[in-house]
Amino acid sequence: MLAQADRTPVTVLGMGPMGRALAGAFIDSGHPTTVWNRSAARAQPVVAKGAAPAPSAAEAAQASPLVVVCVLDDRAALAVLDSAGDALKGRTVVNLTTDSPERAREVAAWAEQRGVDYLDGSIMTPTTTIGGPAAQVLYSGPQEVYARHRAALADIGGAAVYLGTDPGRAAAFDVALLDLFWSTMSGYVHALALARSEGIPPSTLVPFARGIVDILPEIMAELARQAEAGEYPGEDSSLVSAAAGIEHIVHAAKARGLDTGVLSAAKDLADRAIAAEHGEDSFARLVETVAQGPAA
Amino acid sequence: MLAQADRTPVTVLGMGPMGRALAGAFIDSGHPTTVWNRSAARAQPVVAKGAAPAPSAAEAAQASPLVVVCVLDDRAALAVLDSAGDALKGRTVVNLTTDSPERAREVAAWAEQRGVDYLDGSIMTPTTTIGGPAAQVLYSGPQEVYARHRAALADIGGAAVYLGTDPGRAAAFDVALLDLFWSTMSGYVHALALARSEGIPPSTLVPFARGIVDILPEIMAELARQAEAGEYPGEDSSLVSAAAGIEHIVHAAKARGLDTGVLSAAKDLADRAIAAEHGEDSFARLVETVAQGPAA
Repeated sequence: MLAQADRTPVTVLGMGPMGRALAGAFIDSGHPTTVWNRSAARAQPVVAKGAAPAPSAAEAAQASPLVVVCVLDDRAALAVLDSAGDALKGRTVVNLTTDSPERAREVAAWAEQRGVDYLDGSIMTPTTTIGGPAAQVLYSGPQEVYARHRAALADIGGAAVYLGTDPGRAAAFDVALLDLFWSTMSGYVHALALARSEGIPPSTLVPFARGIVDILPEIMAELARQAEAGEYPGEDSSLVSAAAGIEHIVHAAKARGLDTGVLSAAKDLADRAIAAEHGEDSFARLVETVAQGPAA
Repeated sequence: MLAQADRTPVTVLGMGPMGRALAGAFIDSGHPTTVWNRSAARAQPVVAKGAAPAPSAAEAAQASPLVVVCVLDDRAALAVLDSAGDALKGRTVVNLTTDSPERAREVAAWAEQRGVDYLDGSIMTPTTTIGGPAAQVLYSGPQEVYARHRAALADIGGAAVYLGTDPGRAAAFDVALLDLFWSTMSGYVHALALARSEGIPPSTLVPFARGIVDILPEIMAELARQAEAGEYPGEDSSLVSAAAGIEHIVHAAKARGLDTGVLSAAKDLADRAIAAEHGEDSFARLVETVAQGPAA
């Protein structure tokens, strides 16, 4: 016999693309699912799948012991939770809204003052992964609250990682990982534009871009080792050669009339490290240059 | 019986880290290998492995039908090739120096004028991969020249891809792929700095960064499909939500005193697309925004 499935009633507040995906995953796993959104029309697709629409955040909260919030940012999350008022007392709020660690801690403090159990979570994968094995969600907050709802939250799919009691911890990982993600995406759209300016169609570049992706894990692990040790051996690949390489790209992009903002900023950072006599260090030295703040 | 190994004598001009790695790979595969570098001392490690040092680029070129050049940029490559003068006539130069497509075409034109066969190549993987299965090198130039030296060049290791007769083609792929690479690396060092500002050590972030890397291929393929079609459906993830996400990171990084140049430039680009009423499009719309050039 299979382990008994969790059927805890769940409320999902916020029916953006991610909120709808979350509600869909709970419905598919058999949870009685209640949904609410400021503009009710956006809940329609999940209501059609079997979710119960509630006319207010308070009524939605009353329907379930577990209330998941996923809205634009934590300011919006606090407004929604505030509007639910006393209906949340004694329940658990799992805030899957993306925002900064300090804002996550603010929402946690709000919850504590109102007798609401609180977990903060960060969804690391796209909406299309939700409910499937490729989803990944990070959680932080009181361990016993996580333990109580772990089975229901597992129905969001894939891998869940509990990062500790600091409610800002999941957001701290999230913000750093999204930093990597959006920088990479910005580089990628620029690479597609640069390739196209040379007559290389986007689809032709894809397998080669994949080749770049394949070499990242090993390089990332090595740069992290260097950053952790505070030692940046650059014999094989120095900041000077990295800066020269980046300058070639900026030059090629400018010659083709492209915007070069992102790469020029990367070049500026490398140049600052070189000016500080770190040119023979490896690229990992820039972790410290970033930490020194903006250019004077 | 195994296929007969290629034992063509090879000359390597330029003894930076990559030139030394290339010479090492040729030596390991049994090619009589001659090396030259402007400052001879840098050739010492490969001379110790069995390479013959030449006192000038011209004498190095005379030693082999196949002359590989790998120096700082194509300006330096041209200077080295020029200094070899008539010694290169009738030989093949394979220029593995990283530079722009237009510079590759300039070097090709130089070679043609002097009766030198010429291939341009781009090494896509780090020095540590050279000679092993993980190396990847892109080539372009006359097909018969590539065919003639393909077996010897295979000893550089891994996968070789021939991209066509335009000598700038390999560099065009290279510059676009390095664009992606360096943008990603810049995002990564920033992510490490941001994580550290929240007490997350670099090594702790690495497996999660790997999780981000794992989701890239599918997203990249989808963005390329959209860019190729010129259609940017943003229902699941719009530029407005991407810009809000990036703004959270910029805000968190500024609050911790970090430099935010790269991400602020990414945000500026997204903002320009949003101002042009593309906010509900997907991130792939930025391929066109990049192509429109720098902000007015």
